[in-house]
Amino acid sequence: MLYIIGLGLGDERDITVRGLDAVRSCHKVYVEAYTSLLSFGLASDGLSRMEKLYGRDVVVADREMVEERADEILSEAVDSDVAFLVVGDPFGATTHTDLVVRAKKMGLKVKVIHNASVMNAIGACGLQLYHYGETISIPFFTDTWRPDSFYPKIQKNRQLGLHTLCLLDIRVKEPSLESLCRGRKCYEPPKYMSIHIAINQLLEIEETNGGSAYNAETKCVGIARLGNDDQMIVAGSMKELLDIDFGPPLHCLVIVGETHPVEEEMLEFYSIKS
Amino acid sequence: MLYIIGLGLGDERDITVRGLDAVRSCHKVYVEAYTSLLSFGLASDGLSRMEKLYGRDVVVADREMVEERADEILSEAVDSDVAFLVVGDPFGATTHTDLVVRAKKMGLKVKVIHNASVMNAIGACGLQLYHYGETISIPFFTDTWRPDSFYPKIQKNRQLGLHTLCLLDIRVKEPSLESLCRGRKCYEPPKYMSIHIAINQLLEIEETNGGSAYNAETKCVGIARLGNDDQMIVAGSMKELLDIDFGPPLHCLVIVGETHPVEEEMLEFYSIKS
Repeated sequence: MLYIIGLGLGDERDITVRGLDAVRSCHKVYVEAYTSLLSFGLASDGLSRMEKLYGRDVVVADREMVEERADEILSEAVDSDVAFLVVGDPFGATTHTDLVVRAKKMGLKVKVIHNASVMNAIGACGLQLYHYGETISIPFFTDTWRPDSFYPKIQKNRQLGLHTLCLLDIRVKEPSLESLCRGRKCYEPPKYMSIHIAINQLLEIEETNGGSAYNAETKCVGIARLGNDDQMIVAGSMKELLDIDFGPPLHCLVIVGETHPVEEEMLEFYSIKS
Repeated sequence: MLYIIGLGLGDERDITVRGLDAVRSCHKVYVEAYTSLLSFGLASDGLSRMEKLYGRDVVVADREMVEERADEILSEAVDSDVAFLVVGDPFGATTHTDLVVRAKKMGLKVKVIHNASVMNAIGACGLQLYHYGETISIPFFTDTWRPDSFYPKIQKNRQLGLHTLCLLDIRVKEPSLESLCRGRKCYEPPKYMSIHIAINQLLEIEETNGGSAYNAETKCVGIARLGNDDQMIVAGSMKELLDIDFGPPLHCLVIVGETHPVEEEMLEFYSIKS
């Protein structure tokens, strides 16, 4: 049996009781370390705190391991119970759906244990989940690569009066260009997109496209460390949010659409007071 | 302090370890019993199983109690810790956002503990969460009331190639018309919309509107008891799904938009095999 268990958004204690029981019953436990990160992933004692609560050795599976050695992990689950722990909810990222597909093709039993993810916990900012349009991802711009495929999606959401959740790029364990050229892998330090970078990139793309989807005065909500004790939520225009220090990652951003009274009341609590 | 704690989608064991610790530290514990229901809400021993695991007496708060006596509940949280347990995630329903707003206006400290909800666990059907458009709710039609405000939303999602999550009506503790006329409240038995009723209503509305947003051949995914051990997921055309017995509630439905390869592979597992 392969268990794919969501860890939620905070630390090791955000696993569900059902998930904890499953982990403790497993022979082997992996934790993914690439689609996102937990606050305890940043802390130096994160892994040991996990192992202590879960009562199991936990093997960190980075992107390479999951992509290159998935069959190995899956074959272990043929004769014994294996847990694959995932930040947020198991179906938050395509990679895990792919893992489920491979497991099912092998005839493995798969049990998914759900948890909170940014896709529903974003409700915390006060905007109702059913008033969101398509979710977009904003990648880091480079000198030569400034993709804008998210722009028409924002435009459509705004035409429909819907909110847009912007997921911000995370680059963990990316091979450095230099190391690739030398033929051996070295990794760039991890990089998490801040709300400031996201807004600057959004404004640049708006200027290039000129589609008037939004501008520096457009109301947004910046959210840092969603679901953690030090979560920070601030509502204001893009320009105003550029003046806010949101602190450490992870950050995400919501571009606000048309609002209903109860949404406005909630945003009021998070507004920048002049 | 007011804790608003998500219970997730299954039973009492889907609470997070963080949530469980919070409940056990509280002086008074309420559980909401109206926006949705847990599988243990249907089982006769549901409440006692909850009380056993949580180690606390749990007061069931129905819709009337929350709407009429919210101030009372909140005032208890001024001097002691009160937990308000919510099926799914705390921000899945407007009612809880409203409770947070009222609490914050009273100057109460509010701590939210997130969990899975249909809004993210729906990823289990294999369609990627960021390819969904606006979520719609389908209410029970009556002889005289056949609302279709969801129709243009589906139409727009489909024009954009996006999936549409349809939340199906739940009617719990609705006063019966007869009892209202007699001046004392009696309640209708609980009523949960099935996938069959939803599809029939959708097809009726399509016929009335004639907007060609979808038809009996449109690919959908029917999901029953999402996140529970006896969860059932079937992909097929609207017409095909009308022949499937999805069993007990809760049901929901996804109208499939344009699909990507990994989505198609997952849907294949859930397809009706001829």
